[in-house]
Amino acid sequence: MKFNIAVAQSGGPTAAINASLCGVFEGAQGFECIDRVYGSINGIEGIINNNLINLKQVITTAHDKDLLIKTPSTVLGSCRYKLANADENELDYVRIIDTFRRNNIKAFFYIGGNDSMDTVMKLDDYMKKNNIDIKVVGVPKTIDNDLPETDHTPGFGSAAKYVATSLQEIIRDSRVYSIPSITIVEIMGRDAGWLTASSCVLRANGEPAPHMIYLPEREFSVEKFLDDIRLAQQKYKAVVVAVSEGIDCSGGKTGVVDAFGHSYLSGVGKYLENIARERIGCKVRSIELNVMQRCGSHIASLTDLEEAERIGAEAVKTAVEYGLSGVMMTFKRISNNPYRVDIVPCDVRDCANKAKYFPVEWINDEGNNVTIDALNYFLPLIKGEPVIEYKNGIPVHFRLNQ
Amino acid sequence: MKFNIAVAQSGGPTAAINASLCGVFEGAQGFECIDRVYGSINGIEGIINNNLINLKQVITTAHDKDLLIKTPSTVLGSCRYKLANADENELDYVRIIDTFRRNNIKAFFYIGGNDSMDTVMKLDDYMKKNNIDIKVVGVPKTIDNDLPETDHTPGFGSAAKYVATSLQEIIRDSRVYSIPSITIVEIMGRDAGWLTASSCVLRANGEPAPHMIYLPEREFSVEKFLDDIRLAQQKYKAVVVAVSEGIDCSGGKTGVVDAFGHSYLSGVGKYLENIARERIGCKVRSIELNVMQRCGSHIASLTDLEEAERIGAEAVKTAVEYGLSGVMMTFKRISNNPYRVDIVPCDVRDCANKAKYFPVEWINDEGNNVTIDALNYFLPLIKGEPVIEYKNGIPVHFRLNQ
Repeated sequence: MKFNIAVAQSGGPTAAINASLCGVFEGAQGFECIDRVYGSINGIEGIINNNLINLKQVITTAHDKDLLIKTPSTVLGSCRYKLANADENELDYVRIIDTFRRNNIKAFFYIGGNDSMDTVMKLDDYMKKNNIDIKVVGVPKTIDNDLPETDHTPGFGSAAKYVATSLQEIIRDSRVYSIPSITIVEIMGRDAGWLTASSCVLRANGEPAPHMIYLPEREFSVEKFLDDIRLAQQKYKAVVVAVSEGIDCSGGKTGVVDAFGHSYLSGVGKYLENIARERIGCKVRSIELNVMQRCGSHIASLTDLEEAERIGAEAVKTAVEYGLSGVMMTFKRISNNPYRVDIVPCDVRDCANKAKYFPVEWINDEGNNVTIDALNYFLPLIKGEPVIEYKNGIPVHFRLNQ
Repeated sequence: MKFNIAVAQSGGPTAAINASLCGVFEGAQGFECIDRVYGSINGIEGIINNNLINLKQVITTAHDKDLLIKTPSTVLGSCRYKLANADENELDYVRIIDTFRRNNIKAFFYIGGNDSMDTVMKLDDYMKKNNIDIKVVGVPKTIDNDLPETDHTPGFGSAAKYVATSLQEIIRDSRVYSIPSITIVEIMGRDAGWLTASSCVLRANGEPAPHMIYLPEREFSVEKFLDDIRLAQQKYKAVVVAVSEGIDCSGGKTGVVDAFGHSYLSGVGKYLENIARERIGCKVRSIELNVMQRCGSHIASLTDLEEAERIGAEAVKTAVEYGLSGVMMTFKRISNNPYRVDIVPCDVRDCANKAKYFPVEWINDEGNNVTIDALNYFLPLIKGEPVIEYKNGIPVHFRLNQ
């Protein structure tokens, strides 16, 4: 007897989250027992509200699939919805089970980060406690690369490639004038410094900048930061610095007041720009790579997209063929040269609500750069370029609707 | 008897300014009478200080040339140096002539924008007044597209392609959540709105966003801006707005105070973000495309790069074959479909220190968007993609030195 499966996307967008969606969709085609693949609109909210679409009706051709893989963000929408504990409030769970039963859904795949794995864990706990045979499997996704148990996360490699590519262009831009300058580039990663650290990859091509890299995993001192810059200025006319948005420079997040007299979150980049201008006195600018770094699909990593698709397909196999539930799929790096990863499930309880930080042993003694081990870890993840389809000079995106 | 020529790059970087450098270099190869092509380091400063390099020693292979064309910013460095009037202070002129004579330079090509054309004009005036037979020719360059006499400027098409590509990704990113949101994207162009206006090209691919476009060529009212957003919100959950950095929203440029109590230049995007959050109350964010939009060579327009190279080569022909001086090279659009341009010189006095603004007749009556004529003007300029060479997953740039 045939059954259906459902898939949803959650949390912040990446360039690879639609590739994982495609992977689940494609993976299901390998099983005769699977009939429909439902896409849930706006993450778990779509399951709660029975707001589903039949993916076969929207992904109808190989061209659709190809475009979808290279389209950034979440084509099904996303959410930041946190399930209550079932023993405190069962309502959502009842509605979810109702949706699953009404649509004959026997397996649910949730593509997301740390918070989404909390949903996977809670749902799986609920199913097991109530003897309901519906599998729940997590598919990792985050540009922050901060999920435990997995070597890296889909979406990270593309973000890292965007950061490296843009940073290299910013470095070119910073070197044009004959006067000394400081360029501070603020990179995403509220708690973990992986993406900021990945800016070291330019070294592999002989580029000495960024001259300093500051991560939230090490204590940050504004005085040390200024000293580091002064030292770098003895060697380089245009000093370029990569800082994680998550570094704690006390006051940095609340020191700016707008026209209404309200203080608001200024980025650490802008904060440090003002301090450097005040204390060092040369030309200083700060640049935020902003949301472009998480949705820059036109410069996505082919390795990342292919792995994201593959891990989605493996998730289906894990639930349907191996019968596992309450797991998150992970990458295990088998070898670095040649680069090769296996995909294996882990207990979602080991990932949910937990974060994996950048290893402190990969930060140099000075606390202002990363080691060769970090470089070797990052390099394979940004390799390869997808062939982008252009129309009127602009990349073509897959769109469900306007 | 053979002679040499010199070329320099000036003003803000673009993705196409090295392509024009290559065009001058290549154009010179067509003339047996030209021996060396000197590159001047840091614009006119290199001529004043006799700081030249022999380009044949650095562009040695077809591969070098290919990389140089696709490398953003100015490989020879740039400057913001303004020549004094010769009748007030002749010193720079004496040093320039000395450099030209010492190196047997008979023609000088200055790649730059409005300010650089001031240098071309003054130098040509000086040569003519003193009966010195050295040709001075301007090669246009600016992402602002604000040079008079020419249909468009090299560098603009690539910047527009970057803006369209990034904006489309930001639009994808803005649509993921089920709650209403406003995204304000601030685009370069201090006085002229060309680059911001070019964001309309997404319409050609069926994308309704950006829903509003605000240019410095029309008076800006914060109240009208808020009303426009409220109206758009009736139709779109995620409203996306493109604003030129040059719009005048009184107070916007001085209203932000940093941790030291100093006011500093906050962008108009951040200013409008705070007002929209205060007055409309939904999720609001602002994004600055910053210097990436002027140096995003990995997403350059092939049309732009090819034209930039061609106009550089034509400049050499204009000086050496036609014997013209005191001119700037321009594009004349012969037809739009198929797109075809001719390259002709104009009197540099018609461009120097002058700006060409976005036509007010291409702005809609509401003052919050542009017309189909604008769309048709922009589309050919962003077409085509250069083949980018990657090493370790990162675009390879041509580099003179570290």
